[in-house]
Amino acid sequence: MNILFVGDVFGSAGRHIVREHLPHVMETNAVDLLVINGENSAGGFGITPSLAEEFFDMGAHVITTGNHIWDKREIFEYMTVPADSHVRGRRVLRPANYAVGTPGFGVYQGELPTGQSYAVLNLQGRVFMSSCDDPFRKADELLSKITAKVILLDFHGEATSEKVALGWYLDGRVTAVLGTHTHIPTADNRILHNGTAYQTDVGMSGPYDSVIGVEKELILAKFLTGMPGKFEAAKGNAKMCAALIECDGATGRATQIQRIMLGE
Amino acid sequence: MNILFVGDVFGSAGRHIVREHLPHVMETNAVDLLVINGENSAGGFGITPSLAEEFFDMGAHVITTGNHIWDKREIFEYMTVPADSHVRGRRVLRPANYAVGTPGFGVYQGELPTGQSYAVLNLQGRVFMSSCDDPFRKADELLSKITAKVILLDFHGEATSEKVALGWYLDGRVTAVLGTHTHIPTADNRILHNGTAYQTDVGMSGPYDSVIGVEKELILAKFLTGMPGKFEAAKGNAKMCAALIECDGATGRATQIQRIMLGE
Amino acid sequence: MNILFVGDVFGSAGRHIVREHLPHVMETNAVDLLVINGENSAGGFGITPSLAEEFFDMGAHVITTGNHIWDKREIFEYMTVPADSHVRGRRVLRPANYAVGTPGFGVYQGELPTGQSYAVLNLQGRVFMSSCDDPFRKADELLSKITAKVILLDFHGEATSEKVALGWYLDGRVTAVLGTHTHIPTADNRILHNGTAYQTDVGMSGPYDSVIGVEKELILAKFLTGMPGKFEAAKGNAKMCAALIECDGATGRATQIQRIMLGE
Amino acid sequence: MNILFVGDVFGSAGRHIVREHLPHVMETNAVDLLVINGENSAGGFGITPSLAEEFFDMGAHVITTGNHIWDKREIFEYMTVPADSHVRGRRVLRPANYAVGTPGFGVYQGELPTGQSYAVLNLQGRVFMSSCDDPFRKADELLSKITAKVILLDFHGEATSEKVALGWYLDGRVTAVLGTHTHIPTADNRILHNGTAYQTDVGMSGPYDSVIGVEKELILAKFLTGMPGKFEAAKGNAKMCAALIECDGATGRATQIQRIMLGE
Ligand SMILES: [Fe+2]
Ligand SMILES: [Fe+2]
Ligand SMILES: [Fe+2]
Ligand SMILES: [Fe+2]
Ligand SMILES: [Fe+2]
Ligand SMILES: [Fe+2]
Ligand SMILES: [Fe+2]
Ligand SMILES: [Fe+2]
Repeated sequence: MNILFVGDVFGSAGRHIVREHLPHVMETNAVDLLVINGENSAGGFGITPSLAEEFFDMGAHVITTGNHIWDKREIFEYMTVPADSHVRGRRVLRPANYAVGTPGFGVYQGELPTGQSYAVLNLQGRVFMSSCDDPFRKADELLSKITAKVILLDFHGEATSEKVALGWYLDGRVTAVLGTHTHIPTADNRILHNGTAYQTDVGMSGPYDSVIGVEKELILAKFLTGMPGKFEAAKGNAKMCAALIECDGATGRATQIQRIMLGE
Repeated sequence: MNILFVGDVFGSAGRHIVREHLPHVMETNAVDLLVINGENSAGGFGITPSLAEEFFDMGAHVITTGNHIWDKREIFEYMTVPADSHVRGRRVLRPANYAVGTPGFGVYQGELPTGQSYAVLNLQGRVFMSSCDDPFRKADELLSKITAKVILLDFHGEATSEKVALGWYLDGRVTAVLGTHTHIPTADNRILHNGTAYQTDVGMSGPYDSVIGVEKELILAKFLTGMPGKFEAAKGNAKMCAALIECDGATGRATQIQRIMLGE
Repeated sequence: MNILFVGDVFGSAGRHIVREHLPHVMETNAVDLLVINGENSAGGFGITPSLAEEFFDMGAHVITTGNHIWDKREIFEYMTVPADSHVRGRRVLRPANYAVGTPGFGVYQGELPTGQSYAVLNLQGRVFMSSCDDPFRKADELLSKITAKVILLDFHGEATSEKVALGWYLDGRVTAVLGTHTHIPTADNRILHNGTAYQTDVGMSGPYDSVIGVEKELILAKFLTGMPGKFEAAKGNAKMCAALIECDGATGRATQIQRIMLGE
Repeated sequence: MNILFVGDVFGSAGRHIVREHLPHVMETNAVDLLVINGENSAGGFGITPSLAEEFFDMGAHVITTGNHIWDKREIFEYMTVPADSHVRGRRVLRPANYAVGTPGFGVYQGELPTGQSYAVLNLQGRVFMSSCDDPFRKADELLSKITAKVILLDFHGEATSEKVALGWYLDGRVTAVLGTHTHIPTADNRILHNGTAYQTDVGMSGPYDSVIGVEKELILAKFLTGMPGKFEAAKGNAKMCAALIECDGATGRATQIQRIMLGE
């Protein structure tokens, strides 16, 4: 079974490059399950229902997010659906370790047309990020309720130490631990000892002639002066960054993880 | 002209793997200039004069460091030499944007046996790190005094945004901006628009069956309980991570940057 | 009913000044319940069983702590007692929102010789501090199980916003929300709208010719150079900082909160 | 000579309470020099030229600020005046350790009608705040150029350790080191060993039935959910918090520092 996970789609440049390359990558690699991190799809900041629809129309089974999930308020209602629903809004996840009562959900279990069960989890790190619940114990709690064998986790975090640590913590218990949020792909994709595919960060799908997606002059001005300014999504040198995981559908063990970076 | 930069050497596992692969890599690639980040060489925490000597004996021209530079007090005196000296202690750098009066220096300009001039800079980021002087303006200040064309910068930082931003800021003004500190290699090595080689993080040269160098059980216990504990360097699955840069010695412009990850 | 809460006792200077003034303050004010924050009593860093015994011998009913609780390992075993015990080790609290499985407890309910029930809670903030569980929801959870009406909370936190917010959140549900950790007393002691006594920080009981307890030259060197150094507890100008709360034992409502600062 | 320093004026409630009490306090205490921190005067976020004019009309000689200085863009131009000017815009300060090239200035030296010289400095802390230049060394640099004996410093910072440390560092070199930013007054006002008046935080002049100025329900929602929301200035229970310093105009040594908290 083949899973494709596409890293943080950033702005229109990100959406266009994904739209351009996705069909070919899906077909060439016989992708069964497609998960996309869409937290930056709306001009770099958040996601709207119509952008979520676009990703679902492209074939996404689940959309994961992270700290930018609440940037666009339209998404709140879209994600406010019953826990046992399978509508599209139910399949836009926010980190599961956000406070109780926050709109939406951090885990989704579904079934492919083949009858293959799968689950997608979304967690956020706590090092150098806003406070949230313990991602390690939240993972334990969620996994105790999941019956699917194939389980993909998008761990949205800043610090390499926390991401690597969660990878080892879940090794053998999930199919893949894939990091997002730093917007730079790491070259440490590997299969851990007990069969979990791991990569510290899948990287942004967006404009790389930028500072992690934003027009570089704007971010440079911020670093040089500390003064506020509007951040605008860059356009140049768009790349789609993704991880392709091959796993055994019966056991959920990963057998391969491959980095993908496709561009203009 | 070929430059090899070896990322954070971590503990004895890191030193051994570097010692094992370095001669071959140097020879195969006709390396002219060798720079090694040694901030974690002493059991993961700091560097001692004897470990510095080991790196110089292996052929290092300059040793860079970062936030762990003061972990071993023996290095203070070793680095306390005149600014215009060329002894080995002068070629162990600490970030140049540390406070005035701190032992040692953050920049070194030297000459290869061929007569080729070069300079090595070491700077530290400020995002998610201890306070230090502005790395952007410190870079400007240092560059205004450097006469060499071939200039390599080790930017020791946590946040991808700050590292990418400094890369663009110095594009065309230095040969390479190479990130260190996160201990995970990134897959974004490239030549920027004006000829600067860039990589957000070169990655650790050390044991990858670990959490960024440390025994994984110890770090996991820390994440799970918040309780203190001694951190010990791991041993397993050592890799040497490095960046190989090809540049024009006359102009300092980079023509290629290649990731190297060699292991057990 | 009168409650005395003594702020972070720092090193031997702090212990001595408390020992000197406590008897008189207790007697003059007819104190019924005495709670002491002892996280810095062992040379500024942690607390040992013998120092805890000293506080209990002085009349403390409960000892609260904070982020320094694990600095001295001897306290681990001392605090490892059954939840329903009333021994002294059971009455040394660590923040209740630390990870499950951490030694000790974060809440204690007891009874005074008069038959008056009381409870003491200890929580830690998350802003500018290490990650821990949500103190707001942990407070809800703990309060749902407490039967005593008189409830004192030591909220060990850095950010004024978080401390003030928790004060309002618990207004009318606890007798007092008293801040600790910053080591500087605040002048905002008041009774909130629904009868909760509040003070953002009670202040350190320790040497004020210092930087929050530590020899000022050592901390200044740290700020000026960023280099490591041993921190030693200062001695000069010791003050005992405390809050005196008057409340109705039957309802737990506070009627008065008074700042106390007594010195050499 | 008498100096009055008014802490962070927050929103309209803060402006009104200051306007109400200031004339009486000025007169009763024969205030010669009036300095007001106005960083939160515009609805809690920033300051506008017209609000600055209001403060000058009330008798302010200098207005200090902090991290909120750039919240209202109108102030940029107002502060863009020649360094040797004495117009009102020149007397609105931003922290002096902001990046070179930022609008405005962080120090102002003036003369009272009596001929008495004075200087006002504004610095920002680095602990738990955005990066800026070293406030300790920036203070040294500024003081080396100031000829006035009477020197008041507004140190806008979060961490008590950094504020206390700067107090000791400048003891005997300035008339007063007065902290701002936490919006809660501290009760540690004192004259340090060499004649510098010190207080860790003067406290907000604004609505205290709030969370540091903002409507408490809005901040509580933020703490409880992590979700974004508009912050609005509260109105209730406004207090003016200030520090009154008596000093020798000839030497600049402080002889007394008194806390003032006046309310509805
Ligand atoms: Fe993102
Ligand atoms: Fe993110
Ligand atoms: Fe390192
Ligand atoms: Fe480092
Ligand atoms: Fe403390
Ligand atoms: Fe503390
Ligand atoms: Fe403020
Ligand atoms: Fe502020």
